[in-house]
Amino acid sequence: MDPGLGPLIEKLVRSYHEVGGINLAESANLPSKRTVGRICEELLQVLFPGYHDASPIAASQLELITLQRLSEVSLRLEGELCKALRTRSGEGCPETMSTTHCRAFLDRLPAVRAALASDVQAAFEGDPAASGADEVILAYPFLEAVAIQRCAHVLYQQNVPLLPRVMTEWAHARTGMDIHPGAVIGDHFFIDHGTGVVIGETAVIGSHVKLYQGVSLTARSLAGGQQLRGQRRHPTVEDHVTIYAGTTIMGADTVIGAGSTIGANVFLTQSVPANSLVYYEETQLRILPKKSRDPAAGADAPTVVRG
Amino acid sequence: MDPGLGPLIEKLVRSYHEVGGINLAESANLPSKRTVGRICEELLQVLFPGYHDASPIAASQLELITLQRLSEVSLRLEGELCKALRTRSGEGCPETMSTTHCRAFLDRLPAVRAALASDVQAAFEGDPAASGADEVILAYPFLEAVAIQRCAHVLYQQNVPLLPRVMTEWAHARTGMDIHPGAVIGDHFFIDHGTGVVIGETAVIGSHVKLYQGVSLTARSLAGGQQLRGQRRHPTVEDHVTIYAGTTIMGADTVIGAGSTIGANVFLTQSVPANSLVYYEETQLRILPKKSRDPAAGADAPTVVRG
Amino acid sequence: MDPGLGPLIEKLVRSYHEVGGINLAESANLPSKRTVGRICEELLQVLFPGYHDASPIAASQLELITLQRLSEVSLRLEGELCKALRTRSGEGCPETMSTTHCRAFLDRLPAVRAALASDVQAAFEGDPAASGADEVILAYPFLEAVAIQRCAHVLYQQNVPLLPRVMTEWAHARTGMDIHPGAVIGDHFFIDHGTGVVIGETAVIGSHVKLYQGVSLTARSLAGGQQLRGQRRHPTVEDHVTIYAGTTIMGADTVIGAGSTIGANVFLTQSVPANSLVYYEETQLRILPKKSRDPAAGADAPTVVRG
Repeated sequence: MDPGLGPLIEKLVRSYHEVGGINLAESANLPSKRTVGRICEELLQVLFPGYHDASPIAASQLELITLQRLSEVSLRLEGELCKALRTRSGEGCPETMSTTHCRAFLDRLPAVRAALASDVQAAFEGDPAASGADEVILAYPFLEAVAIQRCAHVLYQQNVPLLPRVMTEWAHARTGMDIHPGAVIGDHFFIDHGTGVVIGETAVIGSHVKLYQGVSLTARSLAGGQQLRGQRRHPTVEDHVTIYAGTTIMGADTVIGAGSTIGANVFLTQSVPANSLVYYEETQLRILPKKSRDPAAGADAPTVVRG
Repeated sequence: MDPGLGPLIEKLVRSYHEVGGINLAESANLPSKRTVGRICEELLQVLFPGYHDASPIAASQLELITLQRLSEVSLRLEGELCKALRTRSGEGCPETMSTTHCRAFLDRLPAVRAALASDVQAAFEGDPAASGADEVILAYPFLEAVAIQRCAHVLYQQNVPLLPRVMTEWAHARTGMDIHPGAVIGDHFFIDHGTGVVIGETAVIGSHVKLYQGVSLTARSLAGGQQLRGQRRHPTVEDHVTIYAGTTIMGADTVIGAGSTIGANVFLTQSVPANSLVYYEETQLRILPKKSRDPAAGADAPTVVRG
Repeated sequence: MDPGLGPLIEKLVRSYHEVGGINLAESANLPSKRTVGRICEELLQVLFPGYHDASPIAASQLELITLQRLSEVSLRLEGELCKALRTRSGEGCPETMSTTHCRAFLDRLPAVRAALASDVQAAFEGDPAASGADEVILAYPFLEAVAIQRCAHVLYQQNVPLLPRVMTEWAHARTGMDIHPGAVIGDHFFIDHGTGVVIGETAVIGSHVKLYQGVSLTARSLAGGQQLRGQRRHPTVEDHVTIYAGTTIMGADTVIGAGSTIGANVFLTQSVPANSLVYYEETQLRILPKKSRDPAAGADAPTVVRG
């Protein structure tokens, strides 16, 4: 040990006690991000056997492997459920409670799988670049993000604290898509490319909805944000809506009517009726000749020729 | 084993058979995402020796290490090529076929390296924040994304199914840049920051092109998407073009003329001639005083003071 | 060994020597991305004990664990500092120099912790979806990105080459937020969701600033970029400003006055006074009925009904 580190350690330990931000075994004992990440990986293996593994599954081993995986998920998930449930103020976690939550969760997996199968179908039908369902499951990151969100949503509906958000954040880190576990999402859901997509806690999305990268279904930012906790804050997107890249749709009262198409980079804070087409008028786009005619001169900043 | 899991396992196994989404050893036996990820890491080590390793390379060991790495890449890649080629309907994979594909791929690595060296040069010259080529190779994520895309593009040109997309998706997960292996990309290519960039399958990009984060070269979304498979769907960007953050350029017929600069957050669905400057007219931007004058009152949503 | 690989290896080795892009032990011996990544993980563990570990910390072990971690960070960081300092032209790295830099860095950790505690507070107060400080530390990726940036900024101020950028790029890959170590960032800083955020090297951000995903504080791209090295290139954002998703603010002279709110998807290249509200006029938004009335017909591209 470097004896010179003494005063620094003293300062840090004081900071832990005074400023907080420390997870002590004796108190909260929060869910472990690492363990939750492992649970998420195992759930993807249960949902799509052979796609997230080092090797494919032999047909004769299918039941046995499914049993082993469910047992492992079950063991780990009960442990994390217990920690998460205990963080709720004044609530203990009798073992039966985490077992009950875990079992109710697992029983929903076949329904989650059915919804995901419709998502795979929507992606294949909607994207000419997709060669088949296999490619969608192997190489479309939205499927990981939506699979974990559909699982986390089950726990969110069971009113489990913290754990669902740690799950969707695991998927966010891997895919760039931040889909809150509270969001209600219909079947045949497809997000193409997906990086930068944000779907807020109280958003409601119909069936056959297609989003592109960078779409946000978001809330207004208001002073005293915590007063809005539990209220509806995010928009509704009805069935068969397509929203192009980079568009932000904001507000609890904003409803995008069924069958509508919203163009790219729109900032929409109002409702639109069914079958609408929404975009910024192109006459507002300025296309001017640059002063310099030499392409090799490199790019000028847009303001150079203004005014 | 928890005997209560029996009915759930039965349901899941039935779902595997009925709904699909399972990779069985007896049938397709798809490429393994994990193995492909390892191949990508090894390719980066071959392309930039000493930058992606725990320790730098001793000059006297350079040939030996290169030989070892190529042998390992070769072994793993042949295995995955074999699996990928077999997925094509009615086609087997004689060992010689994967060997031939693998060898043709490896022979292109020096040319890929030369293109990447021009990309490093473009990044250094284009970004005042870069201290030198070393910093670009160490810390600019676009170089990983473009290196893997340039490799995957070789396999795409060889008409290898699935594998190229799993490679670029590996890079997408690491960098947030989704560059389809089909895209044709010229030399001296630079993407600054890069998160959220999407470049579609049939995009064509000239030389000395500079993109910023969130730029999309994308296709129109049409009903019956699979009917467009194989057709040109994405734009052309000619030489010496700069496109700022968040801009979406859409459509097969859209050509951005050489030497043009496109501003941020533009949604462009038409061609522009060479040396154009494109942006939204600033007079459309509204800058209003807020009702509240107290900065500490926090942010109001934009609609609050409208109307 | 496959004897056929000989000519390829010869070509690659020639490319290493001629084209460059190789990190040799005998010359530069750059910082290792892997080791820097490990240092970043350990720093997060020191800053928020128990949140990034497999298990929580026992109160009685707190001092001992802090000591062990600081000793490990110290050992690894001195090694990487030595390599980074040696890359500066004509400068050796006497052991005392890296020890001095390392110690000066560690001594700033309590101050970094205090700033991060204010960021946690800002996130909790600003986001109705947050259940408490624990959720912010466990599941809000901006905190990782800002924690690493605040650490890297200390080394940047010490004029350490390369290392700070490798650190922030490690965080960029994990979170999608690219915050340059040079940026000056005030307290109570909150980035919600955060994917695609870019903050440039010379940006200056006040206190109580809130950014959403996809916000860029960026520089103009000019021919001969390297001539601008060291100059101010990025905007200033004063206290209590909120900037919505996808907005790009550009230029060294651009100042966003205190208390202002900037709407989503704005491209702003001019200053705005304090307490401004900035957005694109909504009358420019076109909301039209689609030709097709059948929602099941799928999405048409926006241009279909124009003209």
